[in-house]
Amino acid sequence: MFDATSEKEFPLKGYSLPLSPKGQTSIVDAPPWYYGGEVLCLTFEADEREVRALIPPPLEMGPNPGQGAVWFVEWVSASEARPDLAFINPERSLYRECFVVVGCQHNGVPGSFVSYIWVDNDFTLARGVIQGFPKKLGRIYITRLHELTPKIGGRQGGAKVKGICDVNAQRIVEGSMTFTHPSKPSELPPVRFYLMRHFPSIEDPTRPSVHELTVATVSDVKIKDVWVGDSQIKFFESPFEEVADLGPVKDQGAFFFSMGLTITGGKVIHKYV
Amino acid sequence: MFDATSEKEFPLKGYSLPLSPKGQTSIVDAPPWYYGGEVLCLTFEADEREVRALIPPPLEMGPNPGQGAVWFVEWVSASEARPDLAFINPERSLYRECFVVVGCQHNGVPGSFVSYIWVDNDFTLARGVIQGFPKKLGRIYITRLHELTPKIGGRQGGAKVKGICDVNAQRIVEGSMTFTHPSKPSELPPVRFYLMRHFPSIEDPTRPSVHELTVATVSDVKIKDVWVGDSQIKFFESPFEEVADLGPVKDQGAFFFSMGLTITGGKVIHKYV
Amino acid sequence: MFDATSEKEFPLKGYSLPLSPKGQTSIVDAPPWYYGGEVLCLTFEADEREVRALIPPPLEMGPNPGQGAVWFVEWVSASEARPDLAFINPERSLYRECFVVVGCQHNGVPGSFVSYIWVDNDFTLARGVIQGFPKKLGRIYITRLHELTPKIGGRQGGAKVKGICDVNAQRIVEGSMTFTHPSKPSELPPVRFYLMRHFPSIEDPTRPSVHELTVATVSDVKIKDVWVGDSQIKFFESPFEEVADLGPVKDQGAFFFSMGLTITGGKVIHKYV
Amino acid sequence: MFDATSEKEFPLKGYSLPLSPKGQTSIVDAPPWYYGGEVLCLTFEADEREVRALIPPPLEMGPNPGQGAVWFVEWVSASEARPDLAFINPERSLYRECFVVVGCQHNGVPGSFVSYIWVDNDFTLARGVIQGFPKKLGRIYITRLHELTPKIGGRQGGAKVKGICDVNAQRIVEGSMTFTHPSKPSELPPVRFYLMRHFPSIEDPTRPSVHELTVATVSDVKIKDVWVGDSQIKFFESPFEEVADLGPVKDQGAFFFSMGLTITGGKVIHKYV
Repeated sequence: MFDATSEKEFPLKGYSLPLSPKGQTSIVDAPPWYYGGEVLCLTFEADEREVRALIPPPLEMGPNPGQGAVWFVEWVSASEARPDLAFINPERSLYRECFVVVGCQHNGVPGSFVSYIWVDNDFTLARGVIQGFPKKLGRIYITRLHELTPKIGGRQGGAKVKGICDVNAQRIVEGSMTFTHPSKPSELPPVRFYLMRHFPSIEDPTRPSVHELTVATVSDVKIKDVWVGDSQIKFFESPFEEVADLGPVKDQGAFFFSMGLTITGGKVIHKYV
Repeated sequence: MFDATSEKEFPLKGYSLPLSPKGQTSIVDAPPWYYGGEVLCLTFEADEREVRALIPPPLEMGPNPGQGAVWFVEWVSASEARPDLAFINPERSLYRECFVVVGCQHNGVPGSFVSYIWVDNDFTLARGVIQGFPKKLGRIYITRLHELTPKIGGRQGGAKVKGICDVNAQRIVEGSMTFTHPSKPSELPPVRFYLMRHFPSIEDPTRPSVHELTVATVSDVKIKDVWVGDSQIKFFESPFEEVADLGPVKDQGAFFFSMGLTITGGKVIHKYV
Repeated sequence: MFDATSEKEFPLKGYSLPLSPKGQTSIVDAPPWYYGGEVLCLTFEADEREVRALIPPPLEMGPNPGQGAVWFVEWVSASEARPDLAFINPERSLYRECFVVVGCQHNGVPGSFVSYIWVDNDFTLARGVIQGFPKKLGRIYITRLHELTPKIGGRQGGAKVKGICDVNAQRIVEGSMTFTHPSKPSELPPVRFYLMRHFPSIEDPTRPSVHELTVATVSDVKIKDVWVGDSQIKFFESPFEEVADLGPVKDQGAFFFSMGLTITGGKVIHKYV
Repeated sequence: MFDATSEKEFPLKGYSLPLSPKGQTSIVDAPPWYYGGEVLCLTFEADEREVRALIPPPLEMGPNPGQGAVWFVEWVSASEARPDLAFINPERSLYRECFVVVGCQHNGVPGSFVSYIWVDNDFTLARGVIQGFPKKLGRIYITRLHELTPKIGGRQGGAKVKGICDVNAQRIVEGSMTFTHPSKPSELPPVRFYLMRHFPSIEDPTRPSVHELTVATVSDVKIKDVWVGDSQIKFFESPFEEVADLGPVKDQGAFFFSMGLTITGGKVIHKYV
């Protein structure tokens, strides 16, 4: 565990606030972080100008300008520092999120920039911000398929799932998928997220203390039970959100799959300050 | 859908409040109700006197006096009236519950009386009360196993799951299980719940409008992926709960399994008023 | 506290489920119930046919057909059985609600029928249903004025408050008021709520066990700090609600005030079964 | 509103993540921030060694070693950038928090270090972390006095209020006060909070990107309706918290008052990196 300073008398430990004598209070433990979950990924094509407006230089428009995706995910997560977390405190190992990405590239390497993301748990909000995911809290609901529930059933042709993201007492994002056929992990679009870390100064609001682009260091990606289907995305207006400026978008199909992975940290690829 | 009165001009429809012109506002739709979920069932043996105090006559102590169980369940549910519910509104098809039962019998037929139950969604609170489950709201957390999450993994020997029930800002019930070996549905203890419907009068608090014992009419029970394991149950004191009076209890082992079923209604077996 | 049966051996006590040996687990204690809170009451005039569709006979259209109101209230509540509740467990003494009433009359006595109501706490959901308020859970947000918060301030001319009701991940009702001038309690419209108790049978979904009209027995009403203002009401569509069928409505002005009262029970004025 | 970079083509605006084309999505707006609320402040004396362990150098033990306080506050808040926030979205202007401070000094200026703090809203979690408050989410409940609620009543001798902080399904802090007599703002202990900003690196978990001590720049402090009373503080053990290491503490009395203030930013008084 991290000793926050080299002065030997510094008494507070931890990877993130709150630091404490024993270092067990941090809202987020240090990586590696472990993830496994069910992913509903809905792809879209939006107006090129709207997508361009979301891409911070030096990132550039991607090879397929206007493309993007909405992800709804339910994660089971833990960290190396607390491998028993899901047992000791289930609340801190389970969360749902909804995020919106737009296609971009960096030095010719295509990927996606994560513009907006909402989650339903505090530790992942903090963990996201440390990585450069611009997380806010929302209430995320995703259809759970269950093969033993009559009239609902499991992953199968014709199954329908919906993700809903409700933020500050208002529905913001809705994404629906109708399963058409099973597929293979190799059919999924490649995933490379460009992220923006940003931490304001308290002395000068116009000059952030941290402002940089990063990519996560990901390993051990495993994907299973992939389904392909038809999709429908709706964005809704709000005085506190701008995601609706992307749409209406052209629906480009959806994927539903199980995924596991490890994040061991990240790499800064550009510093603004 | 139910027409609340035979007078032809009665304009409000629905199975439960709120009744409305189109009948689509009821907090609960009429049965049949469909269920599928993951069950953590922890068995215990408590002091016979404490169990006896929980059993309302004409129910009698069961053949194994003092036995009981704690269930933590995460359900995916729908109703015949709205088979698309899990798609249209995922929030209303998913809930978690924790309940405590004690062994009893009725006319020689052994079963369990459901003494206490907490859930995390309103429609199931209302649906439960209609059946005779004495539901209150709580925050229920249950370890989610996921085979793709490193360090957590799926159902396997050594896997550990915990259920936590937090009510009114206080932890009330905690149940832990360590998986030892897979088992078969036939090894599970039989399930027959005795329930008590009770609806107060608004004119006289000492004479309820409804007070009766019931059993649910259950069909299409399916059980899969059964695991057996060691268990540990803890009850905690609260000024608003009495479940802690049962313990400390003797842990008798636990089961984890997937279950699906249909409830088509219930039968009244005794009327108090 | 209520002894649920006269048979002396009946071991379970309480006013409402769950009944228990000591009678301290009931989701709701017996009346009298005490209330004090801040009320935002927005009046409207709707299409007469839509209002008529909401009024269950023998209730009849009121003397001012089409009139109705939306109430947003934040309550501090306790009961005679637990006068210390607000101290022992603040969570169980505080709640917010949003409800919609339409003008009606019974035997020539004008009042309002409570068509829809959402609350954010379980005990008041149960307490409401016992009285005949058709409560469901929702997330209710109401502007809190505070005289010491710069830019917000207290109750004063020009102050603006909004109530929002979000149900199942969807905004359902929104009501805004701009304060114009202080007023007196005597200027408030009289309040008399007609309520419908309804508790389904578990054996036959078409024949409820309880179905009756009631009025609450209210005493010690105190009203303070009344303001009058302009209003704006919006209802939103949902597959699980019908309140939007009332609108768009004609806004008729709003009141904001503090109110205290005691409910000692209720009177049944009509039985359907 | 802040333009995140001086390069003229940088398209994303805002004070904090998420940055966006119009700058209206930030989880927190730039200061000034406005506050008004009700404060329950409970003072204590703890073991000196435990308090010393919480004070990061160059902060030093305060003039009254071992002293500290627990604050429960319900805030109504807004920002200069969105003065209408409480009207547009009540959810984002209301929050409750519980925090624990210990006495310290810096260059001879006494104050308190904020060791632990839990809040119930995301924007204030982010706003706190930017200032150096080590916020996590919790469920905070505080008795609301209301002069019109029978059996509860308003601020008066004998009134009793309790604050409860429940984190990750476990009660962590509880503070009770019994009102004895009214007092004056001048009788309140002076308030000066020392805060620690800390933002981890994503490349090296042992070297934070930001680590510094700050004090907030506070103006327009207004205090009203001060009451003094007896107090009782309880801390509870948790695998994710260390606040219980402070106690049992010696209760030193409590204050209840209304407070308003403006925070216009902060000053860094020490940099660790």
